[in-house]
Amino acid sequence: MSNEGRVPHKVVVVGAGFGGLQLIHDLKHPGVSITLVDRRNHHLFQPLLYQVATTVLATSEIAWPIRHLFRDRDEVETLLAEVVGVDRHARIVKLKNGASLPYDTLVLATGSRHAYFGHDDWEAHAPGLKTLEDATTIRRRVLIAFERAELEPDPEIRQTLLTFVVIGAGATGVELAGMIAELAHHTLPREFRKIDTRKSRILLIEGGPRVLPAFSPTLSDYAKQALQDLGVEVLVNSQVTDTGAEGLKIGDTTIASRTIIWAAGVQASPAARWLDAKADRAGRVVVQPNLTVPGDEDIFVIGDTAMVEQDGKAVPGLAPAAKQQGAYVAKVIRRRLEGKPAPAAFKYRHQGNLATIGRRAAIIEYGKFRLRGSLAWWLWGIAHIYFLIGTRSRFAVAWSWLWIYLSGLQSARLITQRETMRED
Amino acid sequence: MSNEGRVPHKVVVVGAGFGGLQLIHDLKHPGVSITLVDRRNHHLFQPLLYQVATTVLATSEIAWPIRHLFRDRDEVETLLAEVVGVDRHARIVKLKNGASLPYDTLVLATGSRHAYFGHDDWEAHAPGLKTLEDATTIRRRVLIAFERAELEPDPEIRQTLLTFVVIGAGATGVELAGMIAELAHHTLPREFRKIDTRKSRILLIEGGPRVLPAFSPTLSDYAKQALQDLGVEVLVNSQVTDTGAEGLKIGDTTIASRTIIWAAGVQASPAARWLDAKADRAGRVVVQPNLTVPGDEDIFVIGDTAMVEQDGKAVPGLAPAAKQQGAYVAKVIRRRLEGKPAPAAFKYRHQGNLATIGRRAAIIEYGKFRLRGSLAWWLWGIAHIYFLIGTRSRFAVAWSWLWIYLSGLQSARLITQRETMRED
Repeated sequence: MSNEGRVPHKVVVVGAGFGGLQLIHDLKHPGVSITLVDRRNHHLFQPLLYQVATTVLATSEIAWPIRHLFRDRDEVETLLAEVVGVDRHARIVKLKNGASLPYDTLVLATGSRHAYFGHDDWEAHAPGLKTLEDATTIRRRVLIAFERAELEPDPEIRQTLLTFVVIGAGATGVELAGMIAELAHHTLPREFRKIDTRKSRILLIEGGPRVLPAFSPTLSDYAKQALQDLGVEVLVNSQVTDTGAEGLKIGDTTIASRTIIWAAGVQASPAARWLDAKADRAGRVVVQPNLTVPGDEDIFVIGDTAMVEQDGKAVPGLAPAAKQQGAYVAKVIRRRLEGKPAPAAFKYRHQGNLATIGRRAAIIEYGKFRLRGSLAWWLWGIAHIYFLIGTRSRFAVAWSWLWIYLSGLQSARLITQRETMRED
Repeated sequence: MSNEGRVPHKVVVVGAGFGGLQLIHDLKHPGVSITLVDRRNHHLFQPLLYQVATTVLATSEIAWPIRHLFRDRDEVETLLAEVVGVDRHARIVKLKNGASLPYDTLVLATGSRHAYFGHDDWEAHAPGLKTLEDATTIRRRVLIAFERAELEPDPEIRQTLLTFVVIGAGATGVELAGMIAELAHHTLPREFRKIDTRKSRILLIEGGPRVLPAFSPTLSDYAKQALQDLGVEVLVNSQVTDTGAEGLKIGDTTIASRTIIWAAGVQASPAARWLDAKADRAGRVVVQPNLTVPGDEDIFVIGDTAMVEQDGKAVPGLAPAAKQQGAYVAKVIRRRLEGKPAPAAFKYRHQGNLATIGRRAAIIEYGKFRLRGSLAWWLWGIAHIYFLIGTRSRFAVAWSWLWIYLSGLQSARLITQRETMRED
């Protein structure tokens, strides 16, 4: 009631990822009005995006209309629009359609895209995985490769079409390779007449010495073995030096493949450029311990597009880190509005690492606690369903997983957005 | 065993719609090898396509990979390829990639597309609904119209953006209009801050004197009233004379709208052209009473792309008609292989008409039996779930429907395949 008649404090949040949503969720204060801007109409549950790419889940099972999430918060306004810049002096966010949004506090939570480390031309042959469109593109390419192999009379070209390469053995790369192997070895064999999909080669290529470097060496070893049991060839210490329509190169070795997927690196959004602020090599804005931009206490940067160190290491670009940062910034803003002293510097609490290998195994690491195999898969599944939004999605995803767990059949195998197969 | 060593009889089926699938399902004979050609990798359950367009169902809930359906039939081969012609003399089907398929018996079940009766330029402004891509295009246009209205300062343009027009009041048109009304009136109102989505205008325009002309006048009247109760304006005896980016014309009247959907007519596939056979005005091949092309007993045409009369009326372009024709042709081929006399001429048994209006009402007509309202909706739902393929889909669709029935929330509201909203 004390705020009656006052002009509300305008918070503009750019980006409806995990960080932005958590911030808005926690920032309930009568003196605030919030505008959430995103160029997509949906929030995406990125940890499961690889399952859309590998025909396990449908797009609508892991994406929710942003405005639906805040329908009951009258002070929250959602805009489907693209940000092109920030004028720190005038305190406005500039939109692509020419409009501008004034702010009292600005939060940039604009995430990252996959990056090719100076080889942007590789994207055409080795698409990455960050959006729903990326996922349907990869799905289409993988499925069309099998279709073209079935029609191909030349056995050499056929084998090239049946060679799938995933570059980068972080969680996404491991998960993609595992599910493509399941597809080739369990879902598809009965369906083709001329090719044996079990003869597909699935390669996982990693520049470093082991897969899943965020995990302990024991679990890395387990994951590598589990991948090999699924039929994935794992190549570590292998730096990709070129990719093209016909395959890729690792030094002097050429691997012929028509389906290459990039899971090797990310680049932050252009937030640093908008702010004219200092960025690290990955393009992340180097922020203060309270997540503000140096020299501007009213602009926060969080999530994958922020670089903050803790104990000499960068806080990782994971969903839980983004959510913790969103919650922290909500607290800072609330305290400022209430005239209370600022909270202590942001502190990241690591919640452990999880990754799945194929459709029945996973690894979990939480401090000293380590788990692997089937039980880990069930825990992984329950945790992810818990973090999904709403009863409808939880139920739908649980059903899809139970189905694939029991039947081994990946069902969302649609080739869309193209009239027919490319005939080249 | 009597067929051991014999060259199997080659049946080529073009089109994996209801007719083609039923034919293959019924054509189990040891002396046959079947090649199924489709330019899509999925069979589509078209009667529910409007629910994808109106954000009720996900694409993968009503589409199945074709090869999966016949995985256990070793004599059935599936080709993802586009047919461009038939050489009746050489007895081959010509594919776009230059290859050709020899046949002993050919079945063309290539369906229909929406048609604009000589106004092909209307398609850009008034998309029709026949494929999954059509459905996601319509979904995107409808959702973006609301988003653009929210950003639009000019109240007149805003109302234009909130005006949705469906042309054609057959089952698809009625179902689209009803679900768009549900979206505007029940799902979206709480989510927008500047516009009131309940003030949207949804118009259903019909050239003839009543909606759902395939039903009896009593049920037509009920459907019209139910649509009006949902907030749909129904205009009968109204011939659209022009459509464009800004709206459409009915004689001298202009209706300003940015979202127009075409549900007014269909045109058969080019099968008649491939065969150089006689076609009716809608492009359908005029077939013999046994569904063969005149002068060629080895070529059958079935489903939406065939024209066969019964009691002086054309058999309608409905899923049950296509399935009955597929079953009939399977029987003819089986009898020929067994040296038995041909069955009597194809006879269509009408299985009644069903249509839904919004999310809780439907009408059913089966001979003298007529039902309307909520109970009809439940029967409609049960019937459709029964006709879906596989436990997984039945369960997923039932869950989606139960959810929307109870909550009123349409969930598959994703804008995809475009980086951001068109800003023009």
